[in-house]
Amino acid sequence: VIPVKTIEWRAGEVRILDQRALPGRKVYLRCSHYREVVEAIRTLAARGAPLIGITAAYGVALAAWHSRARDVPGLRDDVRRVVGALERARPTAVNLFWALRRMERVAATGGSGSVASLRERLLREALGIHDEDRSTCAAIGRNGAKLLRRGATVLTHCNAGALATGGMGTALAVIYAANQAGKGVRVYADETRPLLQGARLTAWELRQCGVDVTLICDSVAASVLRERRADCVIVGADRIAANGDTANKVGTLGLAVLAREYGIPFYVAAPRSTFDFSLRGGEAIPIEERSAEEVVCLYGTRVAPFGTRVYSPAFDITPARYISGIITEHGVALPPFAGSLRKLRQEP
Amino acid sequence: VIPVKTIEWRAGEVRILDQRALPGRKVYLRCSHYREVVEAIRTLAARGAPLIGITAAYGVALAAWHSRARDVPGLRDDVRRVVGALERARPTAVNLFWALRRMERVAATGGSGSVASLRERLLREALGIHDEDRSTCAAIGRNGAKLLRRGATVLTHCNAGALATGGMGTALAVIYAANQAGKGVRVYADETRPLLQGARLTAWELRQCGVDVTLICDSVAASVLRERRADCVIVGADRIAANGDTANKVGTLGLAVLAREYGIPFYVAAPRSTFDFSLRGGEAIPIEERSAEEVVCLYGTRVAPFGTRVYSPAFDITPARYISGIITEHGVALPPFAGSLRKLRQEP
Repeated sequence: VIPVKTIEWRAGEVRILDQRALPGRKVYLRCSHYREVVEAIRTLAARGAPLIGITAAYGVALAAWHSRARDVPGLRDDVRRVVGALERARPTAVNLFWALRRMERVAATGGSGSVASLRERLLREALGIHDEDRSTCAAIGRNGAKLLRRGATVLTHCNAGALATGGMGTALAVIYAANQAGKGVRVYADETRPLLQGARLTAWELRQCGVDVTLICDSVAASVLRERRADCVIVGADRIAANGDTANKVGTLGLAVLAREYGIPFYVAAPRSTFDFSLRGGEAIPIEERSAEEVVCLYGTRVAPFGTRVYSPAFDITPARYISGIITEHGVALPPFAGSLRKLRQEP
Repeated sequence: VIPVKTIEWRAGEVRILDQRALPGRKVYLRCSHYREVVEAIRTLAARGAPLIGITAAYGVALAAWHSRARDVPGLRDDVRRVVGALERARPTAVNLFWALRRMERVAATGGSGSVASLRERLLREALGIHDEDRSTCAAIGRNGAKLLRRGATVLTHCNAGALATGGMGTALAVIYAANQAGKGVRVYADETRPLLQGARLTAWELRQCGVDVTLICDSVAASVLRERRADCVIVGADRIAANGDTANKVGTLGLAVLAREYGIPFYVAAPRSTFDFSLRGGEAIPIEERSAEEVVCLYGTRVAPFGTRVYSPAFDITPARYISGIITEHGVALPPFAGSLRKLRQEP
């Protein structure tokens, strides 16, 4: 059910689907320098927490591949520099840091002593991170699909689909898996201002996969929930603290409060790499602020008077108490999260 | 503090500010046929519940002015036809029907028996509706300003300002009046998808009047309320039922639920002409559905795949239990609304 390849290693190049051009055009950025990979993450050509992690890993592998270092310490220096640049690309999705830590570990200990073997080992690690994500997405889909009854309707926000991962997605994997099991699940997709990932990406990939999807403006979600047009809400996550507090695309908090108000289950779907067990609660998660341009300038048309001040956080924090369950590759963690997430942390 | 004239009668023409062109251009539609007035309402060149009422009244006066009827019964027939066309222009804002009932009453009983005197009388009624709205807005401003402390910050949705009325607005009148009293009130304005009245109109008119305004995407409001960046929410209304249930621009319901969740007062500001005492509750208010084009097509760019289904109600209903007070020209109606609105209904 994967509608599109989001990223690929091919002969010393990282090919990244440029998601800014969707749904109009399907073009790939061919990156041969790690700086192009940093740019792709920074400018949201590649986006979605799991995909950001995979992309960063390939960025390190790419830099190592083309490194002119003559010995392993030199290559390690190069890797260190690249990791620093990738770390600064975006602050909130913890998968970025998780993937970079894995690459650093390989850089520190991998290979059999030659530059060539360490290069090879770093590439294998990046390919492995990508490959694991495919199985992780599939497992999230399987685990979440059990929560959906036949004919259910799901409300989702932003894009937590194939386009956000290296596989079939997180929140949308649940829908794909349910539909593979013949459940005929339908979707309401928030358009997700300012960058319209819901309209441009979620509606696009769901339609590619033949899923019945209805697009709504973000502020219509309250009516959809009040009118019980949706049976549950499923969203992705950019970082989850040890207590279950979840950072996700701005607007998620509002959905969670509304779902609670109307007694509708609210689920988060995310791989274990999205958990940051070093943070006790969500208040410590850094929230990226985006530029005013994204809000006031729509496809070249200025919609607000020149000089209008804008507040544009890219994410918000949903307190764990609003969350009915967190769907991971290891199963569905249920409240109280103190216990269920401690157990998740100990999974092999 | 009125930043702009929204509508004007001049020498047999109704001049209507074309709000679709704001904030880029300030152009007036010069209507000499009532069908152009119907179109202006239907296409949202003139929008906002009070302004829709005023515009409809001028539409009737305009048709009467240019009517070729030779006697009063003929003129009444013409008025009836025009009223029917105007009634079908938009379904939710009750001010439209309220203004048309007033014009019908004049048509049925006004004038001194000649076509010329009835024409004159219909025009006087339309000018009177417009004029009353100016004082009504000012009174709403005065009454609401008392609710705001010095240095307060208000969150608002859509545009319930001068541009929605024939005067200084409803929700924004409260802010203008507070600032005339030196309170230095600041505003967060929801951009209000799909038609961006918050960005295009509210940010524009507040800046024209020197008010400190910050624009946000609609889904950022949850963060603004959670972070207590706003002290209260004030919105306008398109129709208010006898129990206080309020139809307003879609997204209002979500704000009301969030305001309740965070213990932040939620006010509605509207003239008595926005009340529909014939409806016991909000469920009977007709909700206009707008076209998919407004959601998927942004200034000529298609943002969702061709054929994507869209659900786009223009309004939602906020149950009275979420509303802290309704600011009218007769004072602030407080819960329980059964009593306070019964009293409002009996005002002279």
